[in-house]
Amino acid sequence: MTPARIGYIQYKPEFGDRTGNLARLEALCRQAAPADLLVLPELAATGYEFLSPAEVRPLAEPFGDGPTFDLCGRLARELNATLVAGYPESAGERLYNAAFVALPDGTFANYRKIHLFSREKELFSPGDAPPLVVETPLGRIGVMICFDWLFPETAHSLAIRGARILCHPSNLVLPGFCQKAMLGRCIENRVFAVTANRWGVEERVGRRLRFTGLSQVVDPRGNVLLAAPEEADHLGVVEIDPALADDKQVTEHNHLFADRRPDLYEGLG
Amino acid sequence: MTPARIGYIQYKPEFGDRTGNLARLEALCRQAAPADLLVLPELAATGYEFLSPAEVRPLAEPFGDGPTFDLCGRLARELNATLVAGYPESAGERLYNAAFVALPDGTFANYRKIHLFSREKELFSPGDAPPLVVETPLGRIGVMICFDWLFPETAHSLAIRGARILCHPSNLVLPGFCQKAMLGRCIENRVFAVTANRWGVEERVGRRLRFTGLSQVVDPRGNVLLAAPEEADHLGVVEIDPALADDKQVTEHNHLFADRRPDLYEGLG
Repeated sequence: MTPARIGYIQYKPEFGDRTGNLARLEALCRQAAPADLLVLPELAATGYEFLSPAEVRPLAEPFGDGPTFDLCGRLARELNATLVAGYPESAGERLYNAAFVALPDGTFANYRKIHLFSREKELFSPGDAPPLVVETPLGRIGVMICFDWLFPETAHSLAIRGARILCHPSNLVLPGFCQKAMLGRCIENRVFAVTANRWGVEERVGRRLRFTGLSQVVDPRGNVLLAAPEEADHLGVVEIDPALADDKQVTEHNHLFADRRPDLYEGLG
Repeated sequence: MTPARIGYIQYKPEFGDRTGNLARLEALCRQAAPADLLVLPELAATGYEFLSPAEVRPLAEPFGDGPTFDLCGRLARELNATLVAGYPESAGERLYNAAFVALPDGTFANYRKIHLFSREKELFSPGDAPPLVVETPLGRIGVMICFDWLFPETAHSLAIRGARILCHPSNLVLPGFCQKAMLGRCIENRVFAVTANRWGVEERVGRRLRFTGLSQVVDPRGNVLLAAPEEADHLGVVEIDPALADDKQVTEHNHLFADRRPDLYEGLG
């Protein structure tokens, strides 16, 4: 066994204060070290409740280029950790609700959320590539963002392509559904999952959103290894054996993926 | 709201004693009435641990023709209930681990398990048709058998084709995994699910299998409405509104099925 330390940073970003949020994220990541993998929330440094695309744009960063990348790239190298964090991406005229993986070697990979939640559809373009699988020092990891959890194909696609750990930056507002369903995601794919949620309330022009915390790390048998409270900053890091996720042999006669019957899954095409 | 009473029969069949088991099932079904839908275990009247196909054959029934069909067809009409039960099906040279739906009008529908578990592969041919969706007086219901639960596409295919209730005859031996994962199945598909498990131990030629009970009825939000103990006969019937499963609008902007991105679910074809 080559153990690895994986976990989440749960905190409460201040809407629009990217500089202040990045300073707090830096402190939290340093506090969580040593860790091999740290997952931060969706839109980790900006807050969530944008009222228009025009409001997103000044806080959006092109992939690989901006203060959030500067900090996380530096931290990944310095802490010898893989970091996964959500950010608003600008790509020409388009905006995406995206997440990057910052690798200890200083490189980045990018994922654009493919299932946009509620009013995000008024702000962002949907991603146009499959959920992201990346080679890391822990083996392959997969990236999905928040509402992607509801669609079982997201996690399934990541696991089938070799992801041992689902990295799941989130800004969850529905209470507990995701956390409950992620147990199933881990069992049905024999993978670990790190859901990093934020907490706190955002109130903008009469709209009020409460984020529901309860970040968690789940193992391939659906056991919750770590869980955060609903309303508090929380660093959760736990030692795991990522290779446990490679055993897809359910019984001597059953393989989790070889036993699939895609031709019979009518209606899913 | 047009309420419906749905539930499960959890009991302990005696291996090979089809006549005795059918008598007990008849008594249990009558005791559970009135009910609109009753789900019985996998291989409900025969027991599970066959050592060879030759041992299955004398207890197998052609679809629609045999003592299990006689009883359940009669009960469905008399109790004005839809019954779902597992049975070993003989079809020419082949044997299937199947389940039928007995409708109150005296007709039947058939499903052959598509994901065979462990040594079942030495006894049965795998089903060659999609999971079954049937029109009933409660609206459409879907049928999946035991180990089918592990493959998220089974429930997803049933729900996308309009099943309001997943009827899930089971002989579960792994402790609790399925029950936990079915909460996710209900949430991700906004459906009800009735898992009807058996309990008790079968010990045959040194092989020992313990069936884990814990039958349950779950609602579209992942709430357990009813749950059976691990080791006891249990009749669970609960009143629900099946139409709750028709609302797939997660938010004003999100529809559970219209929001799917099949082209991006790489690796699942």
